[in-house]
Amino acid sequence: MNYNQIFDQAIDRLHSEGRYRVFIEIMRNKGAYPNARCFHGHNGPKPITVWCSNDYLAMGQHPKVISAMEDALHDVGAGSGGTRNIGGNTHFHVQLENELADLHGKEGALLFTSGYVSNDATLSTLAKLLPGCVIFSDSLNHASMIAGIRNSGCEKRVFNHNDVVHLEQLLAAEDPETPKLIAFESVYSMDGDIAPIHAICDLAEKYNALTYIDEVHAVGMYGKRGGGISERDEAAHRIDIIEGTLGKAFGVMGGYVAADRKIIDVIRSYAPGFIFTTSLSPVLVAGVLASVRHLKESSVERDAQHANAAALKKHFRDAGLPVMESTTHIVPLMVGDPVRAKRISDILLAEYGVYVQPINFPTVPRGTERLRFTPGPAHTNEMMTELTKALVEIWDRLDLRQAA
Amino acid sequence: MNYNQIFDQAIDRLHSEGRYRVFIEIMRNKGAYPNARCFHGHNGPKPITVWCSNDYLAMGQHPKVISAMEDALHDVGAGSGGTRNIGGNTHFHVQLENELADLHGKEGALLFTSGYVSNDATLSTLAKLLPGCVIFSDSLNHASMIAGIRNSGCEKRVFNHNDVVHLEQLLAAEDPETPKLIAFESVYSMDGDIAPIHAICDLAEKYNALTYIDEVHAVGMYGKRGGGISERDEAAHRIDIIEGTLGKAFGVMGGYVAADRKIIDVIRSYAPGFIFTTSLSPVLVAGVLASVRHLKESSVERDAQHANAAALKKHFRDAGLPVMESTTHIVPLMVGDPVRAKRISDILLAEYGVYVQPINFPTVPRGTERLRFTPGPAHTNEMMTELTKALVEIWDRLDLRQAA
Ligand SMILES: Cc1ncc(COP(=O)(O)O)c(C=O)c1O
Ligand SMILES: Cc1ncc(COP(=O)(O)O)c(C=O)c1O
Repeated sequence: MNYNQIFDQAIDRLHSEGRYRVFIEIMRNKGAYPNARCFHGHNGPKPITVWCSNDYLAMGQHPKVISAMEDALHDVGAGSGGTRNIGGNTHFHVQLENELADLHGKEGALLFTSGYVSNDATLSTLAKLLPGCVIFSDSLNHASMIAGIRNSGCEKRVFNHNDVVHLEQLLAAEDPETPKLIAFESVYSMDGDIAPIHAICDLAEKYNALTYIDEVHAVGMYGKRGGGISERDEAAHRIDIIEGTLGKAFGVMGGYVAADRKIIDVIRSYAPGFIFTTSLSPVLVAGVLASVRHLKESSVERDAQHANAAALKKHFRDAGLPVMESTTHIVPLMVGDPVRAKRISDILLAEYGVYVQPINFPTVPRGTERLRFTPGPAHTNEMMTELTKALVEIWDRLDLRQAA
Repeated sequence: MNYNQIFDQAIDRLHSEGRYRVFIEIMRNKGAYPNARCFHGHNGPKPITVWCSNDYLAMGQHPKVISAMEDALHDVGAGSGGTRNIGGNTHFHVQLENELADLHGKEGALLFTSGYVSNDATLSTLAKLLPGCVIFSDSLNHASMIAGIRNSGCEKRVFNHNDVVHLEQLLAAEDPETPKLIAFESVYSMDGDIAPIHAICDLAEKYNALTYIDEVHAVGMYGKRGGGISERDEAAHRIDIIEGTLGKAFGVMGGYVAADRKIIDVIRSYAPGFIFTTSLSPVLVAGVLASVRHLKESSVERDAQHANAAALKKHFRDAGLPVMESTTHIVPLMVGDPVRAKRISDILLAEYGVYVQPINFPTVPRGTERLRFTPGPAHTNEMMTELTKALVEIWDRLDLRQAA
C-alpha cells in the first residue's frame, strides 16, 4: 500500500486533463472597486481589474458595512468564542436571523458558517428525519446541495434542468405516502438562467412535496427588498425552505435558511453541521446586518449592476463573442475546453491586467468550460470596451472563431 | 404524509428527554474579559461572568488581533467575494497557510471556513481517494470527524477511547494491503484527557496506516509555540495530518489542516467542502495571522490559563464538588442528568450572574451530562471563590450530594 503513489496519480489526472487549479493571489482595494492588487508573477503587486467577483454589488466595501463591522470589533471582539449553544449566541446573531426571516416573509431563519454548510446541513438533516424520503434534485444543482442529499442517505431522483415535465413524471412514479422534497436553485450561477418557481410549486402541491430553494445568487439581487427571485416572482410563501448566502451580494460571509418556526427549530436542534461548530464571528454578523438592511431599502446597487450586466452582454454580442444565453446578472462566455479557457484567462491577466477565472469541471460539465464575468455597479463603460477589445484580440490570436 | 406531525414529534422527543436546547443571548465586552451582557429575561442586558468560552486565552480581544482586523477591513473590505479558486484567494490566506504549516513543521496547510468543515471535508475526501480504505476512529471523536468518516462511505472501526490495545487488535485484523487511516483527537474537550500520540503512531507505523489528529482544543494552548500536544510531545513529524481550529484559542473563526505538500494539494483539488464555498473573510484571516504569530512568541496567556485551570480544579475538589479527572485546561463537573444540569445552569445565570452552559446528549453520552468550565487567564481568584460558593449552595439546595 503506497499512499504517495495514489496521491500522485490523483494530481496527475488533473494535470493531464488540463484542469489543475492555480489560485491567483490578490487583494482587493477597498474604495476602489473593482480594482485590486495581484501578487502573481514577479516584481511585487500589480494593479488589476476584477471581473469575476461574487461580491456582486460591492457591499463588502460599503461604508455602512465597514463601520458596522468596526463597531462590533471594538464592542465585542473578533470571534464568538463558542457554538451557538455554548457561549456563541450573540445579540447580533438573533437580530440577523430576525432580519432574514422578515426578508423572506418567513417565521424564522437560522445562520450557518457558510452557504455550503447551510445546504449540506439542512438537506441532510431534514431528509434524515423523514422516513423513506425521496429527494428530487435539479441536474444542475450546486455541489453543496448534492453533498447534503448524498449525506442524507436518501433516494435521489435527478430531473433534467428546469424541466417540470420530467419532474412531474418522477413525482408521479412515487407512492403518494412517500415523503418528498424538491431541491432546486433560483438563479443557476454558471449559466445565468432562472428556475420556473411557480410551476415547481404547483407540482409540489399536487404531489404533497416539500420545496427547498437555493437563492444564493439571487438574495440581495432580485426583488424590491432583495428577497431573491422568490420575492420578485411573489412565490416565497409557496416555498418551504429558502436558503441563501451572506458571502455574495451581501458582501461578507456565512449562510442561512428561512422557513416556518417548526422547521427552523428542527434543523437548529438536529443538524450536526449547525450544532457542533463555532458560530459566525459577531463582526461578520454585524456587517451582514447592515448590508441586508441597506439592500432592503435601496435598489440603486441592484439597478446599476443589472444595467452593467445588460451592457456587457451587448458589448460581447456586438463583437461576435460567444456569450451564453443568460437572463440574469451573470455574463458567461463559452469556450468549451479547459486548456483554452485557462490560456485566455492567463493572457488576460498577464497582458491586460484583467482578472477572470476559467471555470472548469467539476464546477461545470466537461466540454462546457467557460469564462464567467460578473460586472459590478462600478465597472465603467470604458472598462467594458477595453475588455471586449482584449477578448476579440485573444479570440483571433488563438483562432477561436472557427473553433467555436 | 403529514410533515408537520413528524417535525412536532422530533421536537417533542427533545422536550421529553429534557434536552431541548435554549440558547442564551449574550454580548461579550471587549477589554473586560470574562465579562459580558446577557439579554436573557427582562429589563435589558445584565452583566454576567462567562465561564464557558472556548476563546480560552481571550485572543479574540487581544489588541494585536483587533488592530490587524481593523487594518484589513479598511484595506480590502468585509468579504473575499469568491471561492479560493475564483477571486477569493487573498495574500492573507496564503500568508496564514504558510504560518500554520510552519507552526506544525509541515510543508503546507489549507484553510477551511471552520474546524468542522476541515474535519468533514478532509476525512471524507482523503478516504474516498484511497480505494477500500478502512478508518479507525476513537469512540469519543467529535461529531465533525464522525461526519467526515460517514460521508467518506468507508468502513469504520471504532476503538475504545484512548485504548491502544484495542486499536492494535482492530488494525491487526485487516489485510496489510488495505489502506488505513487512524483518526483521533489530542485533547478531548468534554473530558479534558489526552491521547497517547506516540503509542498510536507506533501502531500506525507497524501497520502502515495514515494518522489524522484533531488538535482543535490544543492549538495555541500547548507546546512552546502553541503547536498543540503534538508539539509538546514532539510527535508532529510522526503524524500525517494535523487539524486545528481558528475559533478557539486563536480567538477568531475558521479551520485548517497541515500536512505534506502532496496531501494538501490533493485535498485542495478534490474536497467539495473546500472548493465550492466562499473563502474565509480576509478580515478574519488577518486577525488569525496576528493571533498565531503572537502565540508563537508568547507563553504568558497559556501559562496564566493553565494556572487558573489548576486553581479552579483545586477550589472544586476542596469543596467536595464532583470535578472530573482532567489533565488539561478544561474543568468539567459531573452531573449525570440533563434536567439537573440545566437547572443548575439556570440558577447560576439567574441568581449569580454566572454563565456556564449545561452539556448534554449528543455532545456527551447520556447519563454523563455535565457543566464544563473553561477559566481564562483573566478569571480572578475572587471569581473562582464566588463560583465555588455558588455551586456548593446549589448542590445543597438540590440535594445533589447524596444523588452523586
Ligand atoms: C448555488 C450555490 N449554492 C451555495 C453556494 C455556497 O455558498 P457559500 O459560498 O456561502 O458557501 C454557492 C457558491 O459558493 C453556490 O453557487
Ligand atoms: C474536537 C473538535 N473538533 C472540531 C470542532 C469544530 O471546530 P469549529 O468550531 O472551528 O468548527 C470542535 C468544536 O467546535 C471540536 O470540539
